[in-house]
Amino acid sequence: MFEFMTVRELYEMCLGGENQETDSLEYVELEGWVRTNRPSGKIGFIALNDGTYFRNCQVVYNEDNLDNFKETAHISTGSSVHVLGKLKLTPEAKQPFEIEATHIEIEGVCDEDYPLQKKRHSFEYLRDIPHLRVRGNTFFAIFRIRSILSMAIHEFFQSQGFVYVHTPIITGNDGEGAGEMFRATTIDNTKFEEDFFGKEAFLTVTGQLHVEAFAMAFRDVYTFGPAFRAENSNTTRHASEFWMIEPEIAFADLEDDMDLIEDMVKFCIDYVLENAPEEMKFFAERIDHDCINRITKVRNSHFVRMTYTEAINHLNKAIENGYKFENKVYWGMDLNSEHERYICEEVVKGPVFLTDYPKEIKAFYMRLNDDQKTVAACDLLVPGIGELVGGSQREERYDVLNQMMTEKGMSKETLQWYMDLRRFGGCKHAGFGLGFDRFLMYLTGIENIRDVEPFPRTPRNLKF
Amino acid sequence: MFEFMTVRELYEMCLGGENQETDSLEYVELEGWVRTNRPSGKIGFIALNDGTYFRNCQVVYNEDNLDNFKETAHISTGSSVHVLGKLKLTPEAKQPFEIEATHIEIEGVCDEDYPLQKKRHSFEYLRDIPHLRVRGNTFFAIFRIRSILSMAIHEFFQSQGFVYVHTPIITGNDGEGAGEMFRATTIDNTKFEEDFFGKEAFLTVTGQLHVEAFAMAFRDVYTFGPAFRAENSNTTRHASEFWMIEPEIAFADLEDDMDLIEDMVKFCIDYVLENAPEEMKFFAERIDHDCINRITKVRNSHFVRMTYTEAINHLNKAIENGYKFENKVYWGMDLNSEHERYICEEVVKGPVFLTDYPKEIKAFYMRLNDDQKTVAACDLLVPGIGELVGGSQREERYDVLNQMMTEKGMSKETLQWYMDLRRFGGCKHAGFGLGFDRFLMYLTGIENIRDVEPFPRTPRNLKF
Repeated sequence: MFEFMTVRELYEMCLGGENQETDSLEYVELEGWVRTNRPSGKIGFIALNDGTYFRNCQVVYNEDNLDNFKETAHISTGSSVHVLGKLKLTPEAKQPFEIEATHIEIEGVCDEDYPLQKKRHSFEYLRDIPHLRVRGNTFFAIFRIRSILSMAIHEFFQSQGFVYVHTPIITGNDGEGAGEMFRATTIDNTKFEEDFFGKEAFLTVTGQLHVEAFAMAFRDVYTFGPAFRAENSNTTRHASEFWMIEPEIAFADLEDDMDLIEDMVKFCIDYVLENAPEEMKFFAERIDHDCINRITKVRNSHFVRMTYTEAINHLNKAIENGYKFENKVYWGMDLNSEHERYICEEVVKGPVFLTDYPKEIKAFYMRLNDDQKTVAACDLLVPGIGELVGGSQREERYDVLNQMMTEKGMSKETLQWYMDLRRFGGCKHAGFGLGFDRFLMYLTGIENIRDVEPFPRTPRNLKF
Repeated sequence: MFEFMTVRELYEMCLGGENQETDSLEYVELEGWVRTNRPSGKIGFIALNDGTYFRNCQVVYNEDNLDNFKETAHISTGSSVHVLGKLKLTPEAKQPFEIEATHIEIEGVCDEDYPLQKKRHSFEYLRDIPHLRVRGNTFFAIFRIRSILSMAIHEFFQSQGFVYVHTPIITGNDGEGAGEMFRATTIDNTKFEEDFFGKEAFLTVTGQLHVEAFAMAFRDVYTFGPAFRAENSNTTRHASEFWMIEPEIAFADLEDDMDLIEDMVKFCIDYVLENAPEEMKFFAERIDHDCINRITKVRNSHFVRMTYTEAINHLNKAIENGYKFENKVYWGMDLNSEHERYICEEVVKGPVFLTDYPKEIKAFYMRLNDDQKTVAACDLLVPGIGELVGGSQREERYDVLNQMMTEKGMSKETLQWYMDLRRFGGCKHAGFGLGFDRFLMYLTGIENIRDVEPFPRTPRNLKF
């Protein structure tokens, strides 16, 4: 007689106007966790969440219908329960339905020292309990969107025939030569010839070099996996462990690369808005009022393309006109966040790709332009945060790559295999890197990377 | 006039019988790599692969139509080329079409010392060149299926509302207490208070403990990410780095768990057969003649469920009947591969879940059965390889878990957070672990784990 239903199924049924189904559905069985329990005299209300949907299900219980009314009235926040009851449509009310309980059973009680009580807690407090914070609205919303955005990435690339490559986490390369790395080891010293792999081993900072090898076989490939930086910097945008997406496309140049980035960003925005409407509404109400508006605008924008040199000219013109920047502006500099935001928010007033950066401030593998001074790189800047994606056409000419590696002091011994890709049927190719966690921050308006990672890792912070 | 086409598009068009389209398509543009080049007198044939499809595209070139015929005749295997030509349908031939080249341009030559020449190479030889081996048929097929199987996993779980959780790679827990772990470090000694995280940090061996916390909020969750074992064992089934899928379902018992495993395995088999037909055909022809037949049979089987105790009885009966095993059989033992295969291949003759193992040989978190001797665990055995998946219902009773951790000598200090999940609205729940690489081996018939990982990591072997 009682039909098992999830809260999501009930909402979809009651909101979807599939009356045929609700008509025949009278008695339902539910399981979930008590978000709040408000007994009042002979009646009580439980806000039940079963994990399947952002919104709670209201369970009404009445002394007349429930033999364990007193016990039920004492069920504490966080407890798990099993509910049998009658479905009642309430089209006039805020919730489209409620459950009139005929039976409520406690499955697991929640102890008194439960650290999540009704009142709001600071994000900082919650970071100390990453195993529990996901039960509150904000993190419940974040981590469902994290899952949905992951799927968006896979659907976008797979639907276009890209091959997903699990590039290695433990690597013998020291990456881009940029940034500190963790070592993976089983010894207590530096006699690496006695270590597990017989040599020094690191946790990867990028899968790009490895995935390039696969692009030379499959044409279009992507990675989506964890990466690591052992930098001792405590900012809101840096974590020691994070997830990266690194597509690589063969027979493609920087223009193709920017087309791909633009398509991907727009696809993901659409996907999240469509698949997490309740969660996004919550963020707009509670976290960042502008978030839906901001990403919808990006979704509907044409992404402008501007060279680094043009950007420098714009900045210099701004200074001439009396605009003040904290940092000096000159050709050859690495743009600061204030400069990026000025270009993006004041000049373009929308998403913009800056391209063709001075070779000195970019990585060794980026393709040298004919001017011999700049490389075919692009950074996508978006209003509100600045850089979201960084990409480049790769240097496919062996001699030029070799020369650039000399200039940048790269180890050719450990990267000979990478250089060899240029000797064995290499071709024009390009790719980019998207920091998944930062993308999630951008979409939701969450300002600290520690709050979009399930168990964040930062310097001197390793919780569980 | 020339329309850019991928080889996959051409095959789909010519095989799909969409004649309307091929009628209007006359001149095409292609890019790709030369698999073979066979010049012969005034004519030549290039087998072109552009990475998008398993099969090659035949490009015919003729001295009369090509001004660089001589140069073309010398294009070496592995080179990348740009081709313009006329599409010619050849419905009588092995390939449904060929390209009559009007223009062939070399984009990237392939040097003479290219290690992949026409003749077949041993898998062992190819393991030394993981950046190049993917260009040959076998690895080209493996790594596309790896990508397709990854997507199958995500589609299976996401379509049922499971939330994908990025459980951490660097962890302070020492996992199941089983197996050696890598440390992640930035120091050269063991003064861990001075290390990056201020304490000892490991590379994860399992995401299960962390993902259980998320199951207590989202009900149904899964991980899909890398895991590590620093075991010094050189077998064909162990790698130091591998990918794992670990679903966890709340309000669920061992029966629900086995239902989910069965559904997942069958979904993945269907998905791979449907999305990689050319690759699977290749494996059946060249690697493992039985592979399509074997997985199709599993697909159409009902997965039998049998207790460990019943299995021991079957084994003892076999011994009574004169069957010889290398290892002794007794209740309480960990089954050897020969025993598993006997049960699976001789008794059941199909996939079988063994359940309810002695608690002594299973992990601390598995739920103790009422007999106080066995735990609610299951191993899925499949014909040909034995164990494919291991799962269990989890111990949700704080006191029983506490007692089991004492018995197994687990560190309660670092796992208090995990135990606390039982104090704060815990519930009946279950989950399993699927070794992704082994699943891929099973589907394709590849026998060495080193040959299904893009850049395999094993003891004293860290290539690039």
